[in-house]
Amino acid sequence: MATRKKTTRKKATKRSAQKKKGGARKKASAAGDADIVERIHATDEETIDQITGTAKRVHSSIMKGIKPDLSLPVRALSNVSYSASRGYLQIGRQKKVRTLSVNTVKSFAQTLRMMGLSKELVRNNDFATKREAYYISKNWGDAKFDEQVESDAAMDDIEALFSVDNVSREQLRFFPEEHGGSVSGPLVVIDEDATGQITRIDCARFGTGAFSVPSSVEQLRFETTADFVLLIETAGMFQRLQSHRFWETANCILIEMGGVPTRAVRRFVRRLSDAHKLPVYAFVDCDPYGIANIYRTIKVGSGSAAHVNKFFCVPQTRFLGVTPDDIVEYELPTHPLKDVDVKRAKDALKNDPFFQSQPRWRKALEQLVKMGVRAEQQALAMWGLNYVIDEYLPRKLEHTDRFLP
Amino acid sequence: MATRKKTTRKKATKRSAQKKKGGARKKASAAGDADIVERIHATDEETIDQITGTAKRVHSSIMKGIKPDLSLPVRALSNVSYSASRGYLQIGRQKKVRTLSVNTVKSFAQTLRMMGLSKELVRNNDFATKREAYYISKNWGDAKFDEQVESDAAMDDIEALFSVDNVSREQLRFFPEEHGGSVSGPLVVIDEDATGQITRIDCARFGTGAFSVPSSVEQLRFETTADFVLLIETAGMFQRLQSHRFWETANCILIEMGGVPTRAVRRFVRRLSDAHKLPVYAFVDCDPYGIANIYRTIKVGSGSAAHVNKFFCVPQTRFLGVTPDDIVEYELPTHPLKDVDVKRAKDALKNDPFFQSQPRWRKALEQLVKMGVRAEQQALAMWGLNYVIDEYLPRKLEHTDRFLP
Repeated sequence: MATRKKTTRKKATKRSAQKKKGGARKKASAAGDADIVERIHATDEETIDQITGTAKRVHSSIMKGIKPDLSLPVRALSNVSYSASRGYLQIGRQKKVRTLSVNTVKSFAQTLRMMGLSKELVRNNDFATKREAYYISKNWGDAKFDEQVESDAAMDDIEALFSVDNVSREQLRFFPEEHGGSVSGPLVVIDEDATGQITRIDCARFGTGAFSVPSSVEQLRFETTADFVLLIETAGMFQRLQSHRFWETANCILIEMGGVPTRAVRRFVRRLSDAHKLPVYAFVDCDPYGIANIYRTIKVGSGSAAHVNKFFCVPQTRFLGVTPDDIVEYELPTHPLKDVDVKRAKDALKNDPFFQSQPRWRKALEQLVKMGVRAEQQALAMWGLNYVIDEYLPRKLEHTDRFLP
Repeated sequence: MATRKKTTRKKATKRSAQKKKGGARKKASAAGDADIVERIHATDEETIDQITGTAKRVHSSIMKGIKPDLSLPVRALSNVSYSASRGYLQIGRQKKVRTLSVNTVKSFAQTLRMMGLSKELVRNNDFATKREAYYISKNWGDAKFDEQVESDAAMDDIEALFSVDNVSREQLRFFPEEHGGSVSGPLVVIDEDATGQITRIDCARFGTGAFSVPSSVEQLRFETTADFVLLIETAGMFQRLQSHRFWETANCILIEMGGVPTRAVRRFVRRLSDAHKLPVYAFVDCDPYGIANIYRTIKVGSGSAAHVNKFFCVPQTRFLGVTPDDIVEYELPTHPLKDVDVKRAKDALKNDPFFQSQPRWRKALEQLVKMGVRAEQQALAMWGLNYVIDEYLPRKLEHTDRFLP
């Protein structure tokens, strides 16, 4: 095996050497993209500085004969609060201090190795998924992880550690396994891949297909003439609006969330909306899941990942529909709420800091529970397959000021 | 409501009128696409003829005073067999005859209404998802469906009925809710959307992103210089190959399946491979799920939808890896097989007509059960993040003749 390992290592070095050369050449040739590359690489330098800084603190403690420690934010619901001003669920000040000792030496070493991996990834303009990181550790000798849950936790710790300094997981080059999310409309995405090549993607040129959001969107830049972003819950509804080029008639960017949106999709929407001051409207089913899970997650983030919500939530999102009032006004066919639906709605009213801070939402959720029914966004098809395009959405978009917060 | 319904209907008519005009104008202007449009519309005419033909048979029986009936293929595993010559699981000759009677009048009427909807969709160059079809039926008076399961079943019956005459569900314009599947590489997809506009999509120009396969791919045409199609199980592995432009070095088309591929993805691969005589290679985890579920479904189809396998399976697919032999040769980190894995493997050996007909597969599955372990495709990361790109895939692709069938 030694031989294979060596060849691999050699290869790896050769690769990144080629990559740098290739990358540089391509970049030089890519007119007008120099500034983008600049900005991308500035972020990378910051990330490396953060990692090196932390490593140096550990190193100097050791030199001084002091037991080194790492102080990590506590990743638990008990340490989460809703900031109305910031507009998202944020992690609190509680820290757990991991001090190097006989008992912690392995996890301490693993944490540092994981940080080292991150630095290496940034240097090589590469990335690793949680699963890949787990397998890479198999070559870390005693510091190797026995189970992926352990390496996942170590990655989450580092993610939390650096989130304090506004370094996101994607900047650390730890990418999620899943991506997904379909995009179409008057939007040009400017992207740099691992080989350093810059590409311009016109999301208005996908026919009935769409642009699939990559795992990491940190390197993306955007050009758009759109007036707003429309987030859609179901693939079926996205397909309808996309096939009929609703993005053209409404001059908006259509994004399919496919249920609760992945981090990649949330970060994509956040960066796009921030970059061009675009309003974001959510179009989901009228049920506790659509409201308390999908909409809540995209707008204020999730409780379980509060330490990264500042990167992933989109506080400027507003709720287009389907609202409980729509069920009445449009006489939509409904389904009775299941017990789980009612429980979800009551939990949101009782425990969710976001809904508690929003009187209009409290009213809407109470109304829904009182009505005892739910309606899917495709229920509008009762009035004709394209009623949603011809009537519902245009009417709604005339009064965006009335959207739920 | 009467008013709303009327406006909707008027709108609808206006829409399709505009659409036809718009469509025609755009088509005329789209140079070189005339023949494509021709072919698309020829298929539509066939579909309409099939529907009209069936309706006429029912009508003439009634005129003759005979009870009309529809004879539908039985959609059950008991009526499924594996055709080694055709290379897929196919539906048998068993039929259930639905005769119009007092007891069947509602379901009979619903079946005819559903056929009528299909004809209307083809005429308007539109489509409906199962869910939309359910809601549309709410305006069918006594023929309306009370539950979506009923309308789904009616749609499946019609799908089976016309599959006998080689009319696919997508030709009937019944589209699945889900789509997904990411594509990148030297491939130009030529697409016509519902407004009749033709678009050319270059799948080599997506940076780290990708082309997201639409719900229906019937209207797509392809131009490619690729040598083969590489199907990838996980989003994480796809992202690695895509980010490092493996499609360029290997001159192939990368397609992410995201677990068991959707019908849209399977049909996309099938049509692409057929159109350009492209070999298709599958790269999945080495476990009973990757082999007996993912690979088996893409290659020979699924037992539960045997009546449409002829459209959705890709019999020319071959198995690149990860194979049980790879686990040994590449000394991959493994996980022990769970009981469910062992059960799945044994079921495949005992009950699956495809694996039973393939001695090499029987041997491989028995070997896997004997080894008692499974390996994920990303386990190759143990030898370096890009070992899969630098070593594993190139070595494998030198001997495609050795791939499992």
